[in-house]
Amino acid sequence: MSSIYGNQLRISIFGESHGEAIGTVVDGFPAGVAVDFDFIRAQMARRRPSGGAFSTKRHETDDFRILSGIRDGRTTGAPICAVMENGDTHSQDYDNLTDMPRPSHADYPAMVRYKGANDPRGGGHFSARLTAPLVFAGSLCRSFLRTRGIELIAHIASIADVADEVFDLCRIGGGEAERIAQNELPVLSAEAGERMLALIRAARSAGDTLGGVVECAVTGMKPGCGSPMFGSVESALSSLLFSIPAVKGVEFGSGFGIAALRGSEANDPYYSENDQIKTRFNHNGGILGGITTGMPIVFRAAFKPISSIAQPQRTLNLKSGNEETLVVRGRHDICVVPRAVPVVENAAAIAVCDLLLEEYGYEGLANV
Amino acid sequence: MSSIYGNQLRISIFGESHGEAIGTVVDGFPAGVAVDFDFIRAQMARRRPSGGAFSTKRHETDDFRILSGIRDGRTTGAPICAVMENGDTHSQDYDNLTDMPRPSHADYPAMVRYKGANDPRGGGHFSARLTAPLVFAGSLCRSFLRTRGIELIAHIASIADVADEVFDLCRIGGGEAERIAQNELPVLSAEAGERMLALIRAARSAGDTLGGVVECAVTGMKPGCGSPMFGSVESALSSLLFSIPAVKGVEFGSGFGIAALRGSEANDPYYSENDQIKTRFNHNGGILGGITTGMPIVFRAAFKPISSIAQPQRTLNLKSGNEETLVVRGRHDICVVPRAVPVVENAAAIAVCDLLLEEYGYEGLANV
Amino acid sequence: MSSIYGNQLRISIFGESHGEAIGTVVDGFPAGVAVDFDFIRAQMARRRPSGGAFSTKRHETDDFRILSGIRDGRTTGAPICAVMENGDTHSQDYDNLTDMPRPSHADYPAMVRYKGANDPRGGGHFSARLTAPLVFAGSLCRSFLRTRGIELIAHIASIADVADEVFDLCRIGGGEAERIAQNELPVLSAEAGERMLALIRAARSAGDTLGGVVECAVTGMKPGCGSPMFGSVESALSSLLFSIPAVKGVEFGSGFGIAALRGSEANDPYYSENDQIKTRFNHNGGILGGITTGMPIVFRAAFKPISSIAQPQRTLNLKSGNEETLVVRGRHDICVVPRAVPVVENAAAIAVCDLLLEEYGYEGLANV
Amino acid sequence: MSSIYGNQLRISIFGESHGEAIGTVVDGFPAGVAVDFDFIRAQMARRRPSGGAFSTKRHETDDFRILSGIRDGRTTGAPICAVMENGDTHSQDYDNLTDMPRPSHADYPAMVRYKGANDPRGGGHFSARLTAPLVFAGSLCRSFLRTRGIELIAHIASIADVADEVFDLCRIGGGEAERIAQNELPVLSAEAGERMLALIRAARSAGDTLGGVVECAVTGMKPGCGSPMFGSVESALSSLLFSIPAVKGVEFGSGFGIAALRGSEANDPYYSENDQIKTRFNHNGGILGGITTGMPIVFRAAFKPISSIAQPQRTLNLKSGNEETLVVRGRHDICVVPRAVPVVENAAAIAVCDLLLEEYGYEGLANV
Repeated sequence: MSSIYGNQLRISIFGESHGEAIGTVVDGFPAGVAVDFDFIRAQMARRRPSGGAFSTKRHETDDFRILSGIRDGRTTGAPICAVMENGDTHSQDYDNLTDMPRPSHADYPAMVRYKGANDPRGGGHFSARLTAPLVFAGSLCRSFLRTRGIELIAHIASIADVADEVFDLCRIGGGEAERIAQNELPVLSAEAGERMLALIRAARSAGDTLGGVVECAVTGMKPGCGSPMFGSVESALSSLLFSIPAVKGVEFGSGFGIAALRGSEANDPYYSENDQIKTRFNHNGGILGGITTGMPIVFRAAFKPISSIAQPQRTLNLKSGNEETLVVRGRHDICVVPRAVPVVENAAAIAVCDLLLEEYGYEGLANV
Repeated sequence: MSSIYGNQLRISIFGESHGEAIGTVVDGFPAGVAVDFDFIRAQMARRRPSGGAFSTKRHETDDFRILSGIRDGRTTGAPICAVMENGDTHSQDYDNLTDMPRPSHADYPAMVRYKGANDPRGGGHFSARLTAPLVFAGSLCRSFLRTRGIELIAHIASIADVADEVFDLCRIGGGEAERIAQNELPVLSAEAGERMLALIRAARSAGDTLGGVVECAVTGMKPGCGSPMFGSVESALSSLLFSIPAVKGVEFGSGFGIAALRGSEANDPYYSENDQIKTRFNHNGGILGGITTGMPIVFRAAFKPISSIAQPQRTLNLKSGNEETLVVRGRHDICVVPRAVPVVENAAAIAVCDLLLEEYGYEGLANV
Repeated sequence: MSSIYGNQLRISIFGESHGEAIGTVVDGFPAGVAVDFDFIRAQMARRRPSGGAFSTKRHETDDFRILSGIRDGRTTGAPICAVMENGDTHSQDYDNLTDMPRPSHADYPAMVRYKGANDPRGGGHFSARLTAPLVFAGSLCRSFLRTRGIELIAHIASIADVADEVFDLCRIGGGEAERIAQNELPVLSAEAGERMLALIRAARSAGDTLGGVVECAVTGMKPGCGSPMFGSVESALSSLLFSIPAVKGVEFGSGFGIAALRGSEANDPYYSENDQIKTRFNHNGGILGGITTGMPIVFRAAFKPISSIAQPQRTLNLKSGNEETLVVRGRHDICVVPRAVPVVENAAAIAVCDLLLEEYGYEGLANV
Repeated sequence: MSSIYGNQLRISIFGESHGEAIGTVVDGFPAGVAVDFDFIRAQMARRRPSGGAFSTKRHETDDFRILSGIRDGRTTGAPICAVMENGDTHSQDYDNLTDMPRPSHADYPAMVRYKGANDPRGGGHFSARLTAPLVFAGSLCRSFLRTRGIELIAHIASIADVADEVFDLCRIGGGEAERIAQNELPVLSAEAGERMLALIRAARSAGDTLGGVVECAVTGMKPGCGSPMFGSVESALSSLLFSIPAVKGVEFGSGFGIAALRGSEANDPYYSENDQIKTRFNHNGGILGGITTGMPIVFRAAFKPISSIAQPQRTLNLKSGNEETLVVRGRHDICVVPRAVPVVENAAAIAVCDLLLEEYGYEGLANV
């Protein structure tokens, strides 16, 4: 099992950072869905390196070519393959990594797993560039979900120790997307965004990198989707989120914070509003017993700082057996979190779409 | 997809809290493995309610009967089915839940998902009692993993705001199991354990419940197991952990904490010790690029406080449409975390075993 | 992968012929379905050895106990576990098989696959007795399919060189079930049945066994279910049919016979009748491009003669390395085909049910 | 579930006959395997329409471009994507099919399944052109299997009523491949080949098409691969074979013929030869209890005649509701069987490769 996700909807991601091309095959997508290419391109543009304060100078166009599954702007029901050519690669930057694995990068375990045959250039299949086809597949799913009234929205919850405002667990779905779009970084609080940018500039000067947390919400889900045990919505979403490079933690609702509450504080009474059954606090992030409650699904993903720092580092020379000093070349982000926002937002749409297909089927969806 | 986990090794969990019986089918387990029933019984005893300070007064024997797949103490290669009869049920305690869903319990979403046909008694298939067959399956896997030098160990990292010592991310595998076994609660620090017990007693008096965090480590894993993207070790483990009732967060290595570090702090240099390649800090919890590094795998799972509190609560009467006061009956734990320790420890063994089978296959394992 | 089938609906079969018990877990079955236990028991009775002309003298009651997933006669949505205890086993009959593998039985490959740890008594997990839980799971599915107007019907197409009438590929669904039920063997032609029984009696006298072919039809399927390529209805059904012990061939519609036709003979014009789109000949057995056409699905499965014959046979003594004479003990059928009829009929219902769930989902099914 | 096959090895096929391109993603393939591109190209050339007596005049180059997963001629362990551009399409030939579904083609069920949104040009995703990426994936697998001593070989068993010699079930693996390569059609008997060509020429003159049977063998498999029940080798292979367009029957060993034998005739004694355990007749086609016996795996697949005949046909006009006369345009094969030989041969390699990975794993394979 490796680069395929899902049950009813299956997403296959392929490609290596400095290979010919990267791409995705989306299998099991409903037929007859009008594809909003402007929306997809906008999502991919959000992920693409801008060359700005925080991101790599590598120029990636991310233009995609549809090979199959879409005709005259509508899905045909056949597998959808989209391909993005690689370009602007500086492969020689990676020549020294075969013997000298980068600390906290996948170089060493990949070498063991693939017996030295993996492509180390640009991180190969482990590169964050592989999130481009993930965003393609996810935004394709979103273009379908939106027709069913389901929206996804994410923002930077924190970079290092600077926190944005948090989502109101119960009342998401007002104007957050518009507020976020107004800021240079995808944050709710302009002021927090300014402080984050200052942090990033300082880290760049110091040859260092920064981690952070992305918070995401899914609104418009009906209650009763998902399953207990291994089919829980949390299992499906976390399994997908932990496949995004650099994610080391995932929590739902109040997450690790709920572990410090008393039951009397954490419990979440039901009430009725406009003929809808709601809960007062949504500490559980829209999921109980693995199944949606109808409240917004809210989760957070923690991203570690990018391991490719500009400072010299000590590591083991696998050939000589000695510890030596490594200088990592290549053009890398300072902080992956701003670009991770659309990745999380769109990747999550894949899990939601798979869930809907399981609940409603191809025929059933026509009536939703 | 619901109550089946795994790729090469497939675990099916069945049963409802107040039904006839609960159990598991373990499919794809290697043949010829000597099963350590004493070990399995000891693990199940750790999960079983003790009737002590923190746990339910319900008397569950958890005696299991093997229906298939084990003969003369050795696995035959056929699916292994183990069954635990239910007993000592007070089903009438649940009569009022059909109309009045308990806050933060699965009652309401389950009712929607299953159109009112699900068994609400004792939580039905959503009951934490279903962790008994999970521990059976997991400890069966562990009895195999131990022959390959792989051990799992967990402790209470915290209950409410009382924290235990943390695992040394790099040096786990000394005498932690023995230290933990000496304490009434499964903690490293006897003193922290005392404070946790005091918290639990106070919560019981207050008619309240407590959450907490379980920390777990897997030692003895070779580097190079797992896959990038959707096949990451984090994806496999988190998907399993989020299927344990009440888990709302999962993190690996330094987890959410790593998001606050600089790259220069988080990076983890390689060095060599006794001809083994190691890393200095193991902030990544033994996993890079989704693949094992050979360092201990370390992760934490956050458990919310049990929703069944003794205090009266407000909730919606679905029939009348009015908010009313609910008194939850039934015999419930005050804090699930102590019993969750063996659940996490053994459940994780299932994912590890599946991973090994993928890497080595049935034949290959014979040579490991 | 082994004893679990399906995508949305997952069937796990466990047990060994002379172990404690056999059974099945049906995971992902819709909730709220009224279970027709009389129907299920009738199907299981059809499979059970009758002790008559063609079947083993072993007395199997096949009484099942429901451990989970059904309450007050309705499915709860949780996994359904049913268990059948073993009894009346003569395990000593199998003592000589460890060294002397039976020709054309699974003894030898099973020994290699499971390194000698498999349970050889009664064939262990390879026993045709495992078709009992398969019939349970299948007839459970049928009790659901019938509420959607979908019926399955099978008969003996041939035993050795004696053939029954064949199904009219286009007009199945009249009174075939009633005609078949009137005969001692499940055949359309009473006269063919008589000749088959005579063959069976002669084979019993000769210490020999007989093979044959089962023909099965599924009526009431709407057009448009299934998928091209690997998701074809033929792929799903054949994968299930080839998991029934002794099946060595599967064909759809005119099957191998269609290979001898010209396109002008094989092609199947569409026409309209009572506002339904039909085809004139249904040579394709209700499936085109892997997808249902709305015509009856028709297929045939070839069963080899039971390998356990009463005549002495030569085989290899694996210990001595010499060829020796083996006398197979145990109580075996003379011809498995009559009992295979309900096995095929009900097993096929599992694949059909899985297909419907994929097409309609849990919610969607409610509206079918 | 649709266009993805396999468990450990996953093959995704995408593309539509007249779309931009077709291709495949091979996920989970072992790393470090030297890819024999000459071998792959030779296999693809065998499948490609030759424009000769039996095949379409459409010119398909089938040149493939590797987008990922292979570097410097060796697999990297990342998913392998290969793409073949479409060209020489006459899409206007299919304009009349939307209203007038071709008899025995997928037009009508596809239209229902995909609500009219599928691409009907050239059969879209249902086109036999999709077997090109299947052959790519399969021959890639074969280039690996050959390094393990496993070979696949197929020939035309029959076209209409003209039969080739049959494989000797026990002694395959001598010079059959060489004999077959000498003939214009892939047959063992040159004389049978001549008669088949004569049949094909006559069918072309008559505006008709022909079906037939392909027989295939796998040699070099060790005993003990595969699983009972749903994991049987027959289940895996048949599920794959029935995904090849036009296949309507699959049988193993003596197949439907074995159903007419007595047990005393069908049984297959073990003996020892050169320290290898063998069976005398191999009626079971190298598989018992779903598991390999070490004898050659032999199976046959029946192909129906191509439905696109040159003769006018009657069919239903879905718009008018009247039966009308249809003339199918487009450039079509007269008999798909010659080109199906390499398709069966190579597709089967995918299932065998998946089986080996399950049995040996990535690490284990290194020692096979």
